[in-house]
Amino acid sequence: MRNLTLLTDLYQLTMGQGYFREGKQEQLAVFDIFFRPNRLITYSVAAGMEQAAEYLEQLRFSEDDIAYLRGLGMFGEDFLAYLGKLRFTGDVFAVREGEIVFPYEPILTVRAPMIQAQLVETALLTFVNHQTLIASKASKICAAAGGGVMEFGLRRAQGPDAGIYGARAAIIGGCVSTSNVYAGKLFSVPVSGTMAHSWVMNFPSELEAFRAYARSFPDNCLLLVDTYDTLRSGVPHAIEVFRELRAAGHEPKGIRLDSGDLAYLSKEARKMLDRAGFEKTIICASGDLDETSIRSLKEQGAKIDSWGVGTKLITSADLPALGGVYKLAAVYEDGVEIPKIKLSDTTEKITNPSFKEVYRIYDGKSGMALADYITRAGETVDESKPLELFHPVDTWKRMRVTGFRARKLREPLISGGKRVAPVRSLAEIAAYRREEYARFWEEYTRQDMPHIYKVDLSPALHSLKREMVERFGKGE
Amino acid sequence: MRNLTLLTDLYQLTMGQGYFREGKQEQLAVFDIFFRPNRLITYSVAAGMEQAAEYLEQLRFSEDDIAYLRGLGMFGEDFLAYLGKLRFTGDVFAVREGEIVFPYEPILTVRAPMIQAQLVETALLTFVNHQTLIASKASKICAAAGGGVMEFGLRRAQGPDAGIYGARAAIIGGCVSTSNVYAGKLFSVPVSGTMAHSWVMNFPSELEAFRAYARSFPDNCLLLVDTYDTLRSGVPHAIEVFRELRAAGHEPKGIRLDSGDLAYLSKEARKMLDRAGFEKTIICASGDLDETSIRSLKEQGAKIDSWGVGTKLITSADLPALGGVYKLAAVYEDGVEIPKIKLSDTTEKITNPSFKEVYRIYDGKSGMALADYITRAGETVDESKPLELFHPVDTWKRMRVTGFRARKLREPLISGGKRVAPVRSLAEIAAYRREEYARFWEEYTRQDMPHIYKVDLSPALHSLKREMVERFGKGE
Repeated sequence: MRNLTLLTDLYQLTMGQGYFREGKQEQLAVFDIFFRPNRLITYSVAAGMEQAAEYLEQLRFSEDDIAYLRGLGMFGEDFLAYLGKLRFTGDVFAVREGEIVFPYEPILTVRAPMIQAQLVETALLTFVNHQTLIASKASKICAAAGGGVMEFGLRRAQGPDAGIYGARAAIIGGCVSTSNVYAGKLFSVPVSGTMAHSWVMNFPSELEAFRAYARSFPDNCLLLVDTYDTLRSGVPHAIEVFRELRAAGHEPKGIRLDSGDLAYLSKEARKMLDRAGFEKTIICASGDLDETSIRSLKEQGAKIDSWGVGTKLITSADLPALGGVYKLAAVYEDGVEIPKIKLSDTTEKITNPSFKEVYRIYDGKSGMALADYITRAGETVDESKPLELFHPVDTWKRMRVTGFRARKLREPLISGGKRVAPVRSLAEIAAYRREEYARFWEEYTRQDMPHIYKVDLSPALHSLKREMVERFGKGE
Repeated sequence: MRNLTLLTDLYQLTMGQGYFREGKQEQLAVFDIFFRPNRLITYSVAAGMEQAAEYLEQLRFSEDDIAYLRGLGMFGEDFLAYLGKLRFTGDVFAVREGEIVFPYEPILTVRAPMIQAQLVETALLTFVNHQTLIASKASKICAAAGGGVMEFGLRRAQGPDAGIYGARAAIIGGCVSTSNVYAGKLFSVPVSGTMAHSWVMNFPSELEAFRAYARSFPDNCLLLVDTYDTLRSGVPHAIEVFRELRAAGHEPKGIRLDSGDLAYLSKEARKMLDRAGFEKTIICASGDLDETSIRSLKEQGAKIDSWGVGTKLITSADLPALGGVYKLAAVYEDGVEIPKIKLSDTTEKITNPSFKEVYRIYDGKSGMALADYITRAGETVDESKPLELFHPVDTWKRMRVTGFRARKLREPLISGGKRVAPVRSLAEIAAYRREEYARFWEEYTRQDMPHIYKVDLSPALHSLKREMVERFGKGE
């Protein structure tokens, strides 16, 4: 990973010098990353924590960086010397990558000296916002497809990292492979892809193009059949080459459709392949797909086994930013926590004060997730007693649960500047997402009109918040 | 720059092995990058060519890369040995960064041995699609604001590169600064930013927070006034601190509004600041801005001098991918060009065959741009004779121009694998965009219902295309 210490907003550094001059540089502060709901955000799949941890462990201004900052003419030598020695020494608590997460809950919390905590805000948000966004989009697309989704979007990604870490997030969200060879190597994930239209155009005929490809990849022969005329030229030529392959002792893999009426073409192509004795070949489809078009194709009975999804996945086209925020929740003075709150005219926008813990409450019998439950840090959740859940705004909406299982949703990721959470393979993270996703009733995760999953506050946290709103609510 | 040689789609490599096995590896091919129009793409600002050139000059598979590819089990040792020695030896012709460009015209053309030309497709599209997208969005936002736009979007960018190269593209498109310190250092561009709400929340009172900031930055004091109550608390406290600053011999810089009714608040704040004798202070505004909201604020008479634009710029939120494509235009056999065409049922989607040149035609008197004119390479445009322009689809739409000036829109960027175009500073590129933009009538660049700028074909190119469509139009 590159040294990204300067990957921050200038105001983090101007505030840093301010805190330094005011003698507040060692004051501990607590900041939470969370996101707010919107039409398109019901659940999300957390990702980006691995890059956040790597970044924090490597945080250090190079001499070059300091020289650059000096050249801006706004920082004093005292502060620059301080920055030159700065390392991240704080604690980070975060949900695991692949965790299913919901609006308002702190998915990552930083507890660190104020200057450090501010400095890292921007990069942490960049990693977590981006990868959570793409992992969530992938999860929705994969749910619609029921599996077999390949990530094909690199050329439309917002720069190399968007392609590389976007591919990573897509695998976390459920994709089976990526076309991105760089990401394949970096994260040890399957890569896929065969040929473009230019290959077919570059031979005297489609048949010769297919034969040439079969010569190079006799055991991995997947042919793109829509360059000229899918049903009159592409599929018949593919079948001809498949017969030649089989005669030579190889089994063909299948065909890819990249344009036209994918529902109609896939059904017709399936019949032609089956009639020719190639029932085991697969049909891949691509071309501006997303969860909505895939769901529609399946409803039309399309015979598609594998889906190549590009632009709309890699950019999360209908919602290109998650909008996660990083908000001050507490500071410490003489070791005593002083909770902080950000008020707003909109009740939902008022932040949850204090250093917190998040629990996921599962039904004891079915094992299904019932609600998430945010407490002040140090509160315990006793599984042997009934737990009363109530809506944080409409407090009359209550639910009493017994016989539940409670699990802490976050783990220590960094302690005292050192990484403490295990490094997990992408395969392990993707498997974790699948398992945890299966613990949510479809009512919470479906695309249209989902039920809102409960994210409730403990009585102690709710009282603190209400009391602070009343105390500060009249303005400063 | 990292070694991004593996930043490609797997199919470029499978096709590569196919071409290699068919003995086509040295066959020269010509590919064009262009984009198609849509509701939101009228003109664009080209960018990303600098990163494309750096990437091509550095193209080389490391031993590690080759070992990874070997491990995939799909490539032969003969092809892997070939890849190990592969360098980019071709030519690239491209428009300058900052050039105003239009749908259908080839903004970057690669002429290289087939395997190389395919291998680099994905990364070139990634660079050019991303940066052109963001530079274009920035240009539209800056046109609405009339200047003073600061890029503030890093935390919502799709990964670090999207923030870093997005900031670069935003400067090309007309932004005056970025909050992104990493981009500021890398590209020597101005950085801006002062304080967040957390600064204000972290002092016992807003007034104390402002005073502390003024102590650290007496000559660069810009205060965020909307943490509690903008007009009753924020602006009066700012004025109080501004008076103290002035008494100590410093002039304050201004205030920032980040929420609420920016039109109303800015007008009221302006009156309060002016009445207090701070007429020269500036008012910055931020908060989910884009060209539409900025235009609306200006129509309402908002008194805003400087605009901090984040999410909607750095992600190009209403159009998060440009959709530029890379299409085969010709191959060479025994040194003879064989033009290639990609047919489509949609006339506009049929590609322009052959190795081409692009000219911009300016009116000789006013110097304003009249049309772009695509020819086959080697055609000359004689400024001393009348030039007949006609619509490439509706050929009855014709225009005869005389007394014009013709300029080649592209320059050699890479020749024989070596960079030949000069490396330009970002300031120079941004200045070029401003100058060239001024040569377009506002009818072509305005946001609502713009006139479509003409991009026409020469008679020779038009004949070739028509002849090829007729020859291949019936399917293969």
